[in-house]
Amino acid sequence: MAKPLILVSNDDGITAPGIRTLVKVAKSIGEVIVVAPDGPQSGMGHAITIGNTLRLDKSIAFDDLGIEAYECSGTPADCVKLAKHHVLKERRPDLVVSGINHGSNSSISVLYSGTMSAAIEAAIEGLPAIGFSLCDYGHEADFSHTEEFVEVIIRQALQHGIPENTALNVNLPKKSSEPIKGIKVCRQAHAKWQEEFDERLDPRNRRYFWMTGSFVNFDKGEDTDECALLNNYVSVVPCQYDMTAYHAMARLNEWDI
Amino acid sequence: MAKPLILVSNDDGITAPGIRTLVKVAKSIGEVIVVAPDGPQSGMGHAITIGNTLRLDKSIAFDDLGIEAYECSGTPADCVKLAKHHVLKERRPDLVVSGINHGSNSSISVLYSGTMSAAIEAAIEGLPAIGFSLCDYGHEADFSHTEEFVEVIIRQALQHGIPENTALNVNLPKKSSEPIKGIKVCRQAHAKWQEEFDERLDPRNRRYFWMTGSFVNFDKGEDTDECALLNNYVSVVPCQYDMTAYHAMARLNEWDI
Repeated sequence: MAKPLILVSNDDGITAPGIRTLVKVAKSIGEVIVVAPDGPQSGMGHAITIGNTLRLDKSIAFDDLGIEAYECSGTPADCVKLAKHHVLKERRPDLVVSGINHGSNSSISVLYSGTMSAAIEAAIEGLPAIGFSLCDYGHEADFSHTEEFVEVIIRQALQHGIPENTALNVNLPKKSSEPIKGIKVCRQAHAKWQEEFDERLDPRNRRYFWMTGSFVNFDKGEDTDECALLNNYVSVVPCQYDMTAYHAMARLNEWDI
Repeated sequence: MAKPLILVSNDDGITAPGIRTLVKVAKSIGEVIVVAPDGPQSGMGHAITIGNTLRLDKSIAFDDLGIEAYECSGTPADCVKLAKHHVLKERRPDLVVSGINHGSNSSISVLYSGTMSAAIEAAIEGLPAIGFSLCDYGHEADFSHTEEFVEVIIRQALQHGIPENTALNVNLPKKSSEPIKGIKVCRQAHAKWQEEFDERLDPRNRRYFWMTGSFVNFDKGEDTDECALLNNYVSVVPCQYDMTAYHAMARLNEWDI
Protein backbone atom coordinates (compact mmCIF):
# COMPACT_ATOMS: atom_id res chain seq x y z
CA MET A 1 0.00 0.00 0.00
CA ALA A 2 1.20 3.50 -0.80
CA LYS A 3 2.16 5.64 2.16
CA PRO A 4 -0.51 8.16 3.11
CA LEU A 5 0.18 11.76 2.13
CA ILE A 6 0.08 14.08 5.14
CA LEU A 7 0.02 17.88 4.80
CA VAL A 8 1.42 19.72 7.84
CA SER A 9 0.80 23.35 8.76
CA ASN A 10 0.72 25.45 11.94
CA ASP A 11 0.35 29.00 13.20
CA ASP A 12 3.58 29.52 15.11
CA GLY A 13 5.54 29.61 11.87
CA ILE A 14 7.63 27.08 9.97
CA THR A 15 10.62 27.29 12.34
CA ALA A 16 8.69 26.69 15.58
CA PRO A 17 9.75 23.62 17.58
CA GLY A 18 6.15 22.35 17.74
CA ILE A 19 5.77 21.83 13.99
CA ARG A 20 9.08 19.95 13.95
CA THR A 21 7.69 17.41 16.44
CA LEU A 22 4.54 17.02 14.36
CA VAL A 23 6.52 16.60 11.13
CA LYS A 24 8.69 13.90 12.71
CA VAL A 25 5.68 11.93 13.94
CA ALA A 26 3.89 12.33 10.58
CA LYS A 27 7.05 11.18 8.74
CA SER A 28 7.05 7.93 10.74
CA ILE A 29 3.57 7.23 9.30
CA GLY A 30 3.50 8.66 5.78
CA GLU A 31 4.86 11.01 3.15
CA VAL A 32 4.93 14.57 4.44
CA ILE A 33 4.61 17.97 2.77
CA VAL A 34 4.80 21.16 4.82
CA VAL A 35 3.10 24.46 3.93
CA ALA A 36 3.35 26.79 6.90
CA PRO A 37 3.49 30.52 7.68
CA ASP A 38 6.88 32.23 7.30
CA GLY A 39 6.43 33.80 10.75
CA PRO A 40 4.19 33.75 13.82
CA GLN A 41 0.43 33.87 13.11
CA SER A 42 -0.89 33.19 16.59
CA GLY A 43 -4.37 34.43 17.39
CA MET A 44 -5.20 34.94 13.72
CA GLY A 45 -8.48 33.04 14.03
CA HIS A 46 -9.95 32.19 10.65
CA ALA A 47 -8.36 35.20 8.93
CA ILE A 48 -7.59 35.06 5.22
CA THR A 49 -5.62 37.46 3.02
CA ILE A 50 -7.94 39.20 0.58
CA GLY A 51 -6.79 42.83 0.38
CA ASN A 52 -3.15 41.91 -0.03
CA THR A 53 -0.83 39.70 -2.04
CA LEU A 54 0.56 36.37 -0.90
CA ARG A 55 4.05 34.93 -1.17
CA LEU A 56 4.77 31.22 -1.31
CA ASP A 57 8.39 30.06 -1.46
CA LYS A 58 10.30 26.81 -1.12
CA SER A 59 11.66 26.47 2.40
CA ILE A 60 14.85 24.85 3.63
CA ALA A 61 13.37 24.38 7.11
CA PHE A 62 13.00 20.59 6.74
CA ASP A 63 15.84 19.82 4.33
CA ASP A 64 17.59 17.90 7.14
CA LEU A 65 14.65 15.48 7.24
CA GLY A 66 14.39 15.29 3.44
CA ILE A 67 10.92 16.84 3.51
CA GLU A 68 9.45 19.15 0.88
CA ALA A 69 8.40 22.40 2.56
CA TYR A 70 6.96 25.78 1.59
CA GLU A 71 6.71 28.98 3.60
CA CYS A 72 3.84 31.37 3.04
CA SER A 73 3.43 35.05 3.95
CA GLY A 74 -0.24 34.54 4.83
CA THR A 75 -2.37 33.10 7.59
CA PRO A 76 -2.77 29.41 8.47
CA ALA A 77 -6.05 29.33 6.46
CA ASP A 78 -4.17 30.84 3.48
CA CYS A 79 -1.52 28.12 3.81
CA VAL A 80 -4.12 25.36 3.54
CA LYS A 81 -5.83 27.05 0.59
CA LEU A 82 -2.50 27.50 -1.24
CA ALA A 83 -1.48 23.94 -0.40
CA LYS A 84 -4.74 22.49 -1.73
CA HIS A 85 -5.08 24.61 -4.86
CA HIS A 86 -1.44 25.18 -5.79
CA VAL A 87 1.21 22.95 -4.16
CA LEU A 88 -1.01 19.84 -4.14
CA LYS A 89 -3.06 20.68 -7.22
CA GLU A 90 -2.48 17.20 -8.66
CA ARG A 91 -2.56 15.22 -5.40
CA ARG A 92 -5.05 14.87 -2.60
CA PRO A 93 -3.64 14.64 0.94
CA ASP A 94 -5.03 11.80 3.04
CA LEU A 95 -4.80 13.92 6.16
CA VAL A 96 -4.06 17.53 7.16
CA VAL A 97 -2.47 18.13 10.56
CA SER A 98 -1.76 21.50 12.15
CA GLY A 99 0.48 22.33 15.10
CA ILE A 100 1.73 21.30 17.48
CA ASN A 101 0.74 24.70 18.83
CA HIS A 102 2.76 26.28 21.61
CA GLY A 103 -0.17 26.89 23.94
CA SER A 104 -3.64 25.53 24.60
CA ASN A 105 -6.45 25.84 22.06
CA SER A 106 -9.08 24.23 24.24
CA SER A 107 -12.54 25.63 24.89
CA ILE A 108 -13.25 29.14 23.54
CA SER A 109 -9.65 29.49 22.29
CA VAL A 110 -10.67 27.40 19.27
CA LEU A 111 -12.24 30.58 17.84
CA TYR A 112 -9.03 32.65 18.09
CA SER A 113 -6.73 29.81 17.09
CA GLY A 114 -4.74 29.92 13.88
CA THR A 115 -3.80 26.27 14.44
CA MET A 116 -7.44 25.23 14.38
CA SER A 117 -8.30 27.54 11.48
CA ALA A 118 -5.88 25.54 9.32
CA ALA A 119 -7.65 22.32 10.35
CA ILE A 120 -11.14 23.77 9.88
CA GLU A 121 -10.19 25.21 6.49
CA ALA A 122 -9.07 21.72 5.46
CA ALA A 123 -12.41 20.29 6.66
CA ILE A 124 -14.25 22.88 4.56
CA GLU A 125 -12.18 21.60 1.62
CA GLY A 126 -13.43 18.10 2.38
CA LEU A 127 -10.11 16.88 3.83
CA PRO A 128 -9.76 14.97 7.13
CA ALA A 129 -7.98 17.32 9.51
CA ILE A 130 -6.65 17.58 13.05
CA GLY A 131 -5.22 20.49 15.03
CA PHE A 132 -2.80 19.63 17.85
CA SER A 133 -1.92 22.00 20.71
CA LEU A 134 0.24 21.62 23.78
CA CYS A 135 -0.87 23.34 26.99
CA ASP A 136 2.49 25.08 27.31
CA TYR A 137 3.09 28.49 25.71
CA GLY A 138 6.87 28.38 26.03
CA HIS A 139 9.05 28.46 22.92
CA GLU A 140 11.25 25.91 24.75
CA ALA A 141 8.26 23.68 25.61
CA ASP A 142 8.96 19.94 25.87
CA PHE A 143 6.85 18.01 23.31
CA SER A 144 8.49 14.60 23.83
CA HIS A 145 5.73 13.13 26.02
CA THR A 146 3.08 13.95 23.38
CA GLU A 147 4.56 12.01 20.46
CA GLU A 148 2.94 8.64 21.22
CA PHE A 149 -0.51 10.29 21.57
CA VAL A 150 -0.13 12.34 18.38
CA GLU A 151 0.90 9.16 16.56
CA VAL A 152 -2.03 7.05 17.76
CA ILE A 153 -4.54 9.81 16.89
CA ILE A 154 -3.08 10.24 13.39
CA ARG A 155 -3.12 6.46 12.80
CA GLN A 156 -6.72 6.15 14.00
CA ALA A 157 -7.80 9.10 11.86
CA LEU A 158 -6.21 7.50 8.78
CA GLN A 159 -7.88 4.18 9.59
CA HIS A 160 -11.40 5.38 10.50
CA GLY A 161 -11.61 8.75 8.74
CA ILE A 162 -12.94 11.84 10.49
CA PRO A 163 -16.69 12.54 10.61
CA GLU A 164 -17.71 14.69 7.63
CA ASN A 165 -17.64 18.50 7.95
CA THR A 166 -15.69 18.34 11.20
CA ALA A 167 -12.06 18.77 12.26
CA LEU A 168 -10.57 17.48 15.49
CA ASN A 169 -9.27 19.87 18.14
CA VAL A 170 -6.67 17.89 20.11
CA ASN A 171 -5.10 19.43 23.21
CA LEU A 172 -2.21 17.77 25.01
CA PRO A 173 -1.34 18.27 28.69
CA LYS A 174 1.90 20.03 29.54
CA LYS A 175 4.84 17.80 30.50
CA SER A 176 4.77 17.01 34.20
CA SER A 177 6.00 14.35 36.63
CA GLU A 178 2.69 12.49 36.07
CA PRO A 179 2.32 10.51 32.85
CA ILE A 180 -0.67 11.37 30.60
CA LYS A 181 -3.59 9.12 31.60
CA GLY A 182 -5.18 8.63 28.19
CA ILE A 183 -7.34 10.25 25.51
CA LYS A 184 -10.91 11.53 25.98
CA VAL A 185 -13.50 12.64 23.41
CA CYS A 186 -14.99 15.85 24.85
CA ARG A 187 -17.21 18.81 24.18
CA GLN A 188 -15.93 22.42 24.14
CA ALA A 189 -16.14 23.89 27.66
CA HIS A 190 -18.18 27.07 28.09
CA ALA A 191 -15.50 29.59 29.05
CA LYS A 192 -14.04 32.93 28.04
CA TRP A 193 -10.93 35.05 28.25
CA GLN A 194 -11.31 37.88 30.75
CA GLU A 195 -9.30 40.66 29.13
CA GLU A 196 -7.34 43.37 30.76
CA PHE A 197 -5.50 46.05 28.84
CA ASP A 198 -2.09 47.10 30.02
CA GLU A 199 -1.92 50.81 29.14
CA ARG A 200 1.54 52.30 28.47
CA LEU A 201 3.19 55.34 26.90
CA ASP A 202 5.56 54.99 23.97
CA PRO A 203 8.85 56.95 23.75
CA ARG A 204 6.88 59.76 22.03
CA ASN A 205 4.36 59.90 24.90
CA ARG A 206 1.57 58.38 22.84
CA ARG A 207 -0.67 55.84 24.53
CA TYR A 208 -0.73 52.17 23.52
CA PHE A 209 -2.08 48.93 24.92
CA TRP A 210 -1.06 45.33 25.40
CA MET A 211 -3.91 42.85 25.57
CA THR A 212 -3.58 40.57 28.55
CA GLY A 213 -6.13 38.46 30.33
CA SER A 214 -6.95 35.29 32.14
CA PHE A 215 -9.00 32.25 31.23
CA VAL A 216 -12.30 31.84 33.10
CA ASN A 217 -14.10 28.49 32.94
CA PHE A 218 -17.84 28.73 33.69
CA ASP A 219 -18.40 25.05 32.93
CA LYS A 220 -18.43 22.42 35.68
CA GLY A 221 -19.23 19.58 33.23
CA GLU A 222 -17.06 16.45 33.44
CA ASP A 223 -17.42 15.89 29.69
CA THR A 224 -15.51 19.07 28.71
CA ASP A 225 -12.04 19.50 27.24
CA GLU A 226 -11.04 21.64 30.22
CA CYS A 227 -11.96 18.87 32.66
CA ALA A 228 -10.05 16.26 30.66
CA LEU A 229 -6.92 18.41 30.52
CA LEU A 230 -7.13 19.25 34.22
CA ASN A 231 -7.10 15.52 34.94
CA ASN A 232 -4.09 14.95 32.68
CA TYR A 233 -5.96 13.44 29.72
CA VAL A 234 -5.54 14.40 26.07
CA SER A 235 -8.79 16.10 24.95
CA VAL A 236 -10.30 15.50 21.50
CA VAL A 237 -13.20 17.79 20.48
CA PRO A 238 -14.83 17.34 17.05
CA CYS A 239 -15.46 20.86 15.68
CA GLN A 240 -17.98 21.83 13.05
CA TYR A 241 -18.16 24.96 10.94
CA ASP A 242 -21.92 25.18 10.78
CA MET A 243 -22.33 27.91 13.39
CA THR A 244 -26.15 27.94 13.29
CA ALA A 245 -27.67 27.98 16.79
CA TYR A 246 -30.58 25.72 15.82
CA HIS A 247 -32.04 25.85 19.35
CA ALA A 248 -32.39 29.64 19.05
CA MET A 249 -34.42 29.69 15.82
CA ALA A 250 -37.83 29.11 17.43
CA ARG A 251 -37.42 32.11 19.73
CA LEU A 252 -36.45 34.38 16.84
CA ASN A 253 -39.48 33.24 14.88
CA GLU A 254 -41.62 34.77 17.66
CA TRP A 255 -40.24 38.22 16.81
CA ASP A 256 -42.48 40.71 15.07
CA ILE A 257 -40.49 40.90 11.82
CA MET B 1 -37.03 55.37 30.11
CA ALA B 2 -33.36 56.05 29.39
CA LYS B 3 -32.29 55.61 25.79
CA PRO B 4 -30.57 52.27 25.12
CA LEU B 5 -26.80 52.41 24.69
CA ILE B 6 -25.69 50.93 21.37
CA LEU B 7 -22.05 50.14 20.58
CA VAL B 8 -21.24 50.15 16.86
CA SER B 9 -18.25 48.50 15.19
CA ASN B 10 -17.41 47.05 11.79
CA ASP B 11 -14.58 45.53 9.75
CA ASP B 12 -14.40 47.89 6.76
CA GLY B 13 -12.96 50.63 8.95
CA ILE B 14 -14.43 53.69 10.65
CA THR B 15 -14.72 55.73 7.44
CA ALA B 16 -16.63 53.13 5.41
CA PRO B 17 -20.07 54.22 4.14
CA GLY B 18 -21.70 51.09 5.62
CA ILE B 19 -20.93 51.95 9.24
CA ARG B 20 -22.29 55.47 8.67
CA THR B 21 -25.68 54.00 7.68
CA LEU B 22 -25.67 51.76 10.75
CA VAL B 23 -24.71 54.64 13.06
CA LYS B 24 -27.54 56.80 11.68
CA VAL B 25 -30.13 54.07 12.20
CA ALA B 26 -28.79 53.29 15.69
CA LYS B 27 -28.87 57.02 16.59
CA SER B 28 -32.59 57.15 15.75
CA ILE B 29 -33.12 54.49 18.44
CA GLY B 30 -30.59 55.13 21.19
CA GLU B 31 -27.32 56.63 22.38
CA VAL B 32 -24.44 55.54 20.16
CA ILE B 33 -20.75 54.97 20.78
CA VAL B 34 -18.46 53.85 17.95
CA VAL B 35 -15.28 51.80 18.38
CA ALA B 36 -14.11 50.66 14.96
CA PRO B 37 -10.90 49.73 13.13
CA ASP B 38 -8.80 52.62 11.80
CA GLY B 39 -8.58 50.86 8.41
CA PRO B 40 -9.94 47.89 6.48
CA GLN B 41 -10.00 44.58 8.38
CA SER B 42 -12.01 42.48 5.94
CA GLY B 43 -11.51 38.73 6.07
CA MET B 44 -9.85 38.92 9.48
CA GLY B 45 -12.08 36.19 10.91
CA HIS B 46 -11.88 36.00 14.67
CA ALA B 47 -8.29 37.30 14.78
CA ILE B 48 -7.04 39.14 17.87
CA THR B 49 -3.83 41.07 18.43
CA ILE B 50 -1.62 39.25 20.91
CA GLY B 51 1.96 39.55 19.64
CA ASN B 52 1.66 43.26 19.01
CA THR B 53 0.55 46.51 20.64
CA LEU B 54 -2.80 48.20 20.10
CA ARG B 55 -3.65 51.86 19.54
CA LEU B 56 -6.97 53.39 20.50
CA ASP B 57 -7.58 57.05 19.71
CA LYS B 58 -10.53 59.45 19.71
CA SER B 59 -11.89 59.78 16.19
CA ILE B 60 -13.48 62.74 14.45
CA ALA B 61 -15.30 60.45 12.01
CA PHE B 62 -18.74 61.04 13.56
CA ASP B 63 -18.30 64.58 14.94
CA ASP B 64 -20.85 65.82 12.39
CA LEU B 65 -23.48 63.58 14.03
CA GLY B 66 -22.36 64.48 17.57
CA ILE B 67 -21.34 60.89 18.25
CA GLU B 68 -18.42 59.76 20.44
CA ALA B 69 -16.12 57.59 18.36
CA TYR B 70 -12.80 55.79 18.73
CA GLU B 71 -10.54 54.27 16.10
CA CYS B 72 -8.44 51.23 16.90
CA SER B 73 -5.39 49.77 15.16
CA GLY B 74 -6.58 46.22 15.80
CA THR B 75 -9.12 43.74 14.50
CA PRO B 76 -12.92 43.92 14.94
CA ALA B 77 -12.67 41.48 17.88
CA ASP B 78 -9.99 43.76 19.44
CA CYS B 79 -12.35 46.74 19.03
CA VAL B 80 -15.12 45.00 20.96
CA LYS B 81 -12.71 43.91 23.69
CA LEU B 82 -11.29 47.43 24.04
CA ALA B 83 -14.79 48.91 23.98
CA LYS B 84 -16.03 46.59 26.72
CA HIS B 85 -13.00 46.71 29.00
CA HIS B 86 -11.73 50.23 28.40
CA VAL B 87 -14.07 52.72 26.67
CA LEU B 88 -17.21 51.33 28.35
CA LYS B 89 -15.59 50.14 31.55
CA GLU B 90 -18.27 51.88 33.66
CA ARG B 91 -21.27 51.28 31.35
CA ARG B 92 -22.83 48.23 29.81
CA PRO B 93 -24.13 48.56 26.25
CA ASP B 94 -27.68 47.29 25.68
CA LEU B 95 -26.75 46.13 22.20
CA VAL B 96 -23.66 45.72 20.01
CA VAL B 97 -24.10 46.09 16.25
CA SER B 98 -21.45 45.54 13.60
CA GLY B 99 -21.45 46.59 9.94
CA ILE B 100 -23.08 47.29 7.69
CA ASN B 101 -20.51 45.23 5.84
CA HIS B 102 -19.77 45.94 2.19
CA GLY B 103 -20.34 42.39 0.97
CA SER B 104 -22.24 39.28 1.99
CA ASN B 105 -21.37 37.34 5.13
CA SER B 106 -23.92 34.61 4.56
CA SER B 107 -23.22 30.90 4.78
CA ILE B 108 -19.57 29.85 5.21
CA SER B 109 -18.41 33.50 4.98
CA VAL B 110 -19.42 33.88 8.63
CA LEU B 111 -16.13 32.13 9.52
CA TYR B 112 -13.94 34.59 7.58
CA SER B 113 -15.98 37.65 8.51
CA GLY B 114 -14.54 40.41 10.64
CA THR B 115 -18.04 41.92 10.87
CA MET B 116 -19.39 38.78 12.50
CA SER B 117 -16.32 38.31 14.72
CA ALA B 118 -17.17 41.65 16.38
CA ALA B 119 -20.73 40.42 17.01
CA ILE B 120 -19.60 36.98 18.21
CA GLU B 121 -16.97 38.54 20.49
CA ALA B 122 -19.75 40.64 22.03
CA ALA B 123 -21.86 37.50 22.53
CA ILE B 124 -18.91 35.83 24.30
CA GLU B 125 -18.85 38.90 26.56
CA GLY B 126 -22.52 38.28 27.35
CA LEU B 127 -23.80 41.21 25.27
CA PRO B 128 -26.68 41.01 22.75
CA ALA B 129 -25.11 41.44 19.32
CA ILE B 130 -25.96 41.59 15.64
CA GLY B 131 -23.77 41.71 12.53
CA PHE B 132 -25.28 43.33 9.43
CA SER B 133 -23.97 42.80 5.89
CA LEU B 134 -25.14 44.00 2.50
CA CYS B 135 -24.78 41.64 -0.49
CA ASP B 136 -22.89 44.30 -2.43
CA TYR B 137 -19.10 44.56 -2.22
CA GLY B 138 -18.89 48.03 -3.77
CA HIS B 139 -17.47 50.92 -1.77
CA GLU B 140 -20.24 53.00 -3.42
CA ALA B 141 -22.95 50.49 -2.50
CA ASP B 142 -26.45 51.88 -1.90
CA PHE B 143 -27.58 51.09 1.67
CA SER B 144 -30.77 53.23 1.62
CA HIS B 145 -33.20 50.33 1.07
CA THR B 146 -31.82 48.45 4.10
CA GLU B 147 -32.44 51.11 6.76
CA GLU B 148 -36.04 50.12 7.64
CA PHE B 149 -35.01 46.45 8.03
CA VAL B 150 -31.96 47.28 10.14
CA GLU B 151 -34.15 49.46 12.34
CA VAL B 152 -36.87 46.86 12.91
CA ILE B 153 -34.29 44.16 13.73
CA ILE B 154 -32.50 46.44 16.22
CA ARG B 155 -35.80 47.42 17.87
CA GLN B 156 -36.93 43.78 18.13
CA ALA B 157 -33.55 42.75 19.56
CA LEU B 158 -33.79 45.48 22.22
CA GLN B 159 -37.36 44.42 23.05
CA HIS B 160 -36.96 40.61 23.11
CA GLY B 161 -33.23 40.19 23.76
CA ILE B 162 -31.10 37.76 21.78
CA PRO B 163 -30.91 34.08 22.77
CA GLU B 164 -27.99 33.53 25.16
CA ASN B 165 -24.56 32.66 23.74
CA THR B 166 -25.61 33.57 20.21
CA ALA B 167 -25.18 36.54 17.88
CA LEU B 168 -27.34 37.26 14.85
CA ASN B 169 -25.89 37.17 11.35
CA VAL B 170 -28.12 39.45 9.25
CA ASN B 171 -27.59 39.67 5.49
CA LEU B 172 -29.43 42.21 3.36
CA PRO B 173 -30.14 41.84 -0.36
CA LYS B 174 -28.43 44.22 -2.76
CA LYS B 175 -30.50 47.18 -4.00
CA SER B 176 -32.54 46.23 -7.03
CA SER B 177 -35.71 47.22 -8.85
CA GLU B 178 -37.63 44.72 -6.65
CA PRO B 179 -38.38 45.76 -3.06
CA ILE B 180 -37.15 43.44 -0.28
CA LYS B 181 -39.94 40.93 0.49
CA GLY B 182 -39.39 40.54 4.25
CA ILE B 183 -37.17 38.95 6.90
CA LYS B 184 -36.56 35.21 7.36
CA VAL B 185 -34.92 33.31 10.22
CA CYS B 186 -32.59 30.79 8.52
CA ARG B 187 -29.86 28.27 9.02
CA GLN B 188 -26.35 28.67 7.55
CA ALA B 189 -26.23 27.13 4.06
CA HIS B 190 -23.63 24.40 3.48
CA ALA B 191 -21.33 26.06 0.96
CA LYS B 192 -17.71 26.97 0.35
CA TRP B 193 -15.44 29.33 -1.52
CA GLN B 194 -13.73 27.62 -4.43
CA GLU B 195 -10.35 29.35 -4.47
CA GLU B 196 -8.17 30.10 -7.40
CA PHE B 197 -4.81 31.78 -7.11
CA ASP B 198 -3.84 34.38 -9.67
CA GLU B 199 -0.06 33.96 -10.01
CA ARG B 200 1.95 37.04 -11.06
CA LEU B 201 5.51 38.36 -11.14
CA ASP B 202 6.46 41.50 -9.24
CA PRO B 203 8.74 44.19 -10.79
CA ARG B 204 11.73 42.24 -9.37
CA ASN B 205 10.58 39.02 -11.08
CA ARG B 206 9.56 37.38 -7.83
CA ARG B 207 6.36 35.36 -7.80
CA TYR B 208 3.30 36.42 -5.81
CA PHE B 209 -0.37 35.47 -5.66
CA TRP B 210 -3.78 37.09 -5.40
CA MET B 211 -6.47 34.93 -3.83
CA THR B 212 -9.60 34.87 -5.94
CA GLY B 213 -12.46 32.45 -6.04
CA SER B 214 -16.12 31.84 -6.45
CA PHE B 215 -18.87 30.88 -4.05
CA VAL B 216 -20.26 27.35 -4.43
CA ASN B 217 -23.53 26.47 -2.69
CA PHE B 218 -24.00 22.71 -2.14
CA ASP B 219 -27.22 23.23 -0.18
CA LYS B 220 -30.64 22.97 -1.84
CA GLY B 221 -32.52 23.59 1.44
CA GLU B 222 -35.24 26.23 1.40
CA ASP B 223 -34.51 27.11 5.03
CA THR B 224 -31.00 28.47 4.32
CA ASP B 225 -29.71 32.03 4.29
CA GLU B 226 -28.64 31.62 0.67
CA CYS B 227 -32.16 30.66 -0.38
CA ALA B 228 -33.70 33.60 1.50
CA LEU B 229 -31.28 36.09 -0.09
CA LEU B 230 -31.81 34.61 -3.56
CA ASN B 231 -35.52 35.26 -3.12
CA ASN B 232 -34.92 38.87 -1.99
CA TYR B 233 -35.52 38.30 1.73
CA VAL B 234 -33.31 39.55 4.56
CA SER B 235 -31.70 36.48 6.20
CA VAL B 236 -31.23 36.20 9.98
CA VAL B 237 -29.07 33.31 11.23
CA PRO B 238 -28.49 32.88 14.97
CA CYS B 239 -24.80 31.92 15.39
CA GLN B 240 -23.27 30.13 18.34
CA TYR B 241 -19.63 29.89 19.37
CA ASP B 242 -19.80 26.36 20.76
CA MET B 243 -18.22 24.63 17.78
CA THR B 244 -18.58 21.09 19.19
CA ALA B 245 -19.93 18.66 16.58
CA TYR B 246 -22.03 16.72 19.11
CA HIS B 247 -23.29 14.31 16.44
CA ALA B 248 -19.68 13.23 15.74
CA MET B 249 -18.75 12.28 19.29
CA ALA B 250 -20.23 8.75 19.23
CA ARG B 251 -18.20 7.79 16.15
CA LEU B 252 -14.98 9.05 17.72
CA ASN B 253 -15.69 7.04 20.86
CA GLU B 254 -15.46 3.90 18.70
CA TRP B 255 -11.80 4.66 17.95
CA ASP B 256 -9.13 2.53 19.56
CA ILE B 257 -7.60 5.29 21.69
